[in-house]
Amino acid sequence: MSERAAIEVYDTTLRDGAQQEGLSLSVADKLAIARHLDDLGVGVIEGGWPGAIPKDTEFFARAADELQLRHARLAAFGATRRAGGRADTDAQVRALLDARAPVVTLVAKSHTGHVERALRTTPAENLEMVRDSVAFLVAEGREVVLDAEHFFDGFLLDRAYALEVLRVAMTAGASTVALCDTNGGHLPDVVADVVAEVRAAVGAPMGIHCHNDTGCAVANTLAAVDAGAVQVQGTLNGYGERTGNADLVTVVANLELKRSTPVLRPGGLAEASRIAHAVSEITNVPPYSRQPYVGASAFTHKAGLHASAIRVDPDLYQHTDPRTVGNDMRMLVSEMAGRASIELKGRELGLDLSDPVLLSAVTEAVKSKEAEGYTFEAADASFDLLVRRVAAERGLGEGVPDYFHVDSWRVITEMRPGDAHGAALSEATVRLVLQGERCVASGEGNGPVNALDAALRTALDPSYPELAHLDLVDFRVRILDAAHGTDAVTRVLLETADQESSWTTVGVGPNVVEASWEALVDGLAHGLLRRGVPSRA
Amino acid sequence: MSERAAIEVYDTTLRDGAQQEGLSLSVADKLAIARHLDDLGVGVIEGGWPGAIPKDTEFFARAADELQLRHARLAAFGATRRAGGRADTDAQVRALLDARAPVVTLVAKSHTGHVERALRTTPAENLEMVRDSVAFLVAEGREVVLDAEHFFDGFLLDRAYALEVLRVAMTAGASTVALCDTNGGHLPDVVADVVAEVRAAVGAPMGIHCHNDTGCAVANTLAAVDAGAVQVQGTLNGYGERTGNADLVTVVANLELKRSTPVLRPGGLAEASRIAHAVSEITNVPPYSRQPYVGASAFTHKAGLHASAIRVDPDLYQHTDPRTVGNDMRMLVSEMAGRASIELKGRELGLDLSDPVLLSAVTEAVKSKEAEGYTFEAADASFDLLVRRVAAERGLGEGVPDYFHVDSWRVITEMRPGDAHGAALSEATVRLVLQGERCVASGEGNGPVNALDAALRTALDPSYPELAHLDLVDFRVRILDAAHGTDAVTRVLLETADQESSWTTVGVGPNVVEASWEALVDGLAHGLLRRGVPSRA
Repeated sequence: MSERAAIEVYDTTLRDGAQQEGLSLSVADKLAIARHLDDLGVGVIEGGWPGAIPKDTEFFARAADELQLRHARLAAFGATRRAGGRADTDAQVRALLDARAPVVTLVAKSHTGHVERALRTTPAENLEMVRDSVAFLVAEGREVVLDAEHFFDGFLLDRAYALEVLRVAMTAGASTVALCDTNGGHLPDVVADVVAEVRAAVGAPMGIHCHNDTGCAVANTLAAVDAGAVQVQGTLNGYGERTGNADLVTVVANLELKRSTPVLRPGGLAEASRIAHAVSEITNVPPYSRQPYVGASAFTHKAGLHASAIRVDPDLYQHTDPRTVGNDMRMLVSEMAGRASIELKGRELGLDLSDPVLLSAVTEAVKSKEAEGYTFEAADASFDLLVRRVAAERGLGEGVPDYFHVDSWRVITEMRPGDAHGAALSEATVRLVLQGERCVASGEGNGPVNALDAALRTALDPSYPELAHLDLVDFRVRILDAAHGTDAVTRVLLETADQESSWTTVGVGPNVVEASWEALVDGLAHGLLRRGVPSRA
Repeated sequence: MSERAAIEVYDTTLRDGAQQEGLSLSVADKLAIARHLDDLGVGVIEGGWPGAIPKDTEFFARAADELQLRHARLAAFGATRRAGGRADTDAQVRALLDARAPVVTLVAKSHTGHVERALRTTPAENLEMVRDSVAFLVAEGREVVLDAEHFFDGFLLDRAYALEVLRVAMTAGASTVALCDTNGGHLPDVVADVVAEVRAAVGAPMGIHCHNDTGCAVANTLAAVDAGAVQVQGTLNGYGERTGNADLVTVVANLELKRSTPVLRPGGLAEASRIAHAVSEITNVPPYSRQPYVGASAFTHKAGLHASAIRVDPDLYQHTDPRTVGNDMRMLVSEMAGRASIELKGRELGLDLSDPVLLSAVTEAVKSKEAEGYTFEAADASFDLLVRRVAAERGLGEGVPDYFHVDSWRVITEMRPGDAHGAALSEATVRLVLQGERCVASGEGNGPVNALDAALRTALDPSYPELAHLDLVDFRVRILDAAHGTDAVTRVLLETADQESSWTTVGVGPNVVEASWEALVDGLAHGLLRRGVPSRA
């Protein structure tokens, strides 16, 4: 565990972020995101609500065994004990203990209207629930954060009661009281005023938890920090219910770059773009290109008024150096790919695109592929193959070995009479030409791509035993033109891995199976190429 | 023309918004958007840069003849005259006059670094360019707004010069000086301080023009208003270069609803959701569901925690009434949802779940389906079918008619020797039992789902001619457990539509084709059910 920063970054992507419409995380997804958050260097990772959500119970059980956090502490989120009961016998409170997380965050009502109408208890019993629950968990050795739900609305309605909830929690041993604008309706001036008043009245270490319903989640968070808050809560990519939570990356970039307040691990901010995009691959929520700092368009300039001046001095037209957040400046020479970004991309992959003829040819090829629906942002391996093929056409490189020739393929997916749901089988046949001879092989799988993969490996194995080291590890499908229903163009991203690394290829076409086949064949070709395997075709 | 509000709303969607990556507006698009903006009730519509962009010259020519604005005044945007020339003979300045717009907005440098390095002239000549250009246009009867580009950066670098640019413009007759955070890098405290200093030093009517690079465009705009700005500039849906401009709808909703400052025409705000979505149809930029106030998710609730309380009192969980901006509250059914949100969802769909036995059974069924990977958030039609089926099992309803029995199906996808890329064909065969008889039918398509859909319709058409009215309109695939590669569970969301509406069904399984089949069959069953078609099986 690293030393705690003056401003603690508290991430709730896995709990409050998961409330976002259309977002559904498996336990494996949550573990993967937690690793990214730790890599970013946040202080606390709120993992979920054990005892209330079975998947979250499982997450904490697996996290305790599998998750080695280098920077962050894990927090289990839950409610105060039930009205009229006792914390030490409350099943839900006990589940928070059983989660084995060093931090427990208790959500509590601080708004009398919510106490009476939502919780259906008395204001006095609510205070007792806070006191009892906090004291019990502190006695059990937990660091307890109190999330004061609807705090700002509650404070404006009944200042004395809202403050009393915070005082009771602090007296019972809470480390921090987080003030939540749960409905997200406030503006920075109100947030600043309330935080300053709480600071004067209670003097507790305060956290701030904002939602973006007025488009001010980031500004509200900063206003609270200016008024004395020492913990900032938020989510990666601003995920969350309704309009989302405060985007944690924007908040920390503002604090580190605009206020010179380090809040992440040293070096963490430079990983922000990579991590934000990796997490959106896991959540399958398409990245928002206009996202501050890390969005694909955040440092992108359209040709026009600025173009010539940017060439003279990019700093005149950038509010910060994009490398500070691991992003890049892009110039849109056309609406598609620009030469500059392609050269940069090539440099990133260790490909020499300094020859202007080659660079032009590759730019043209990328533009034409992108017009068809391809994307090379995530599909580095397909970009690499494209560059090699274009270079070979221009006599500027060796190209990609022709490992095999595909003659034809077929895949049958079938549900037979009496099959239970989930029992459909796929069977594929591929016909290749290898070492001058035709070769036919079949394979089975629980889906068409699996079956094609099996058949292809059966055919290739005698010539390329190296393929045994390669595995298909991920497969993603996006439909590009929603207006055309099943006629739409399909884009498949396929990730292949060996023991050391993984790479992604892309396939596009009206037929999802054919698009998958394209990505599959390129994924295996790239795997052979990176091992230096020569063609044996 | 209506009376001017105390705070003037100045829209630049058609000029600065059009700088957004991927956005390209025709003249007809611009005219249509201008009509929507006028309907919303903004004060000024900046239409483009006549003389510099041919499409914008044409826009103003057509606008002068065709556009009957009821509320807004049109503004033509352009630069001050060239260094060393005269405004009255400057081609670009004359083009601004020729545009026949009552307002001319002149962009001017107020940052010495930009004057010298980008404009390549002297600070003194830049002042003369401002004076001459403003005075000429005012003498020609135009209202002139001065957009002081890079004002905040310029002010922090050379306060005296930045202020002098504003003074010269005001003396020459400008109506407003708009302070632009062109690079978008500032935070609300700096914006507030600078605006207050300008107000004290110059005392001119000030506009504010913010970009969202720090995620604070809206808050910066409000901070400027609090410090004395009387004109707010922004764009619909926050369109703009990089991270976009201040989202004008969020700004005006905050001013009208949170500050009780009317800024649009009376009744305009209630049209905001409709207009924001209509404009995104024109720009073809997909709407952002998390957009404050007008986004599809802006008033959507998922949490089980809140659902029981929302039933009691929606105002406890909404920062404002969604109808004030023409939006609606929606409830989602999710794994976090308890009985309360399922009951609410049922009520939304017109299903009676008041029977506690039925409600428990449906809640159990939803939880168990969600554990398998189903999601009902978007799949209202599958939720409806689930409720009916569970009710029928409990003897509490009629259930879903057994429209047909599926015996088996098979789909073959094939790339034949010599086929070009993109030519793979799928062929499906389905075997059903209908009216007691076995029935076999085939169908072709450019993908397995298309082929199965075609085969199914061929088989069903004689018994259910109503199916001719139904179309597949969207098809989305998500792989649920990325760790398992092509062995992962696949979730398919499929949207079916008739002339009046559309509905979404979900299918889940290890085989993508089988998951699609499940969603397809349920989509057609729901289509028959909503038309009241009885079983003819």
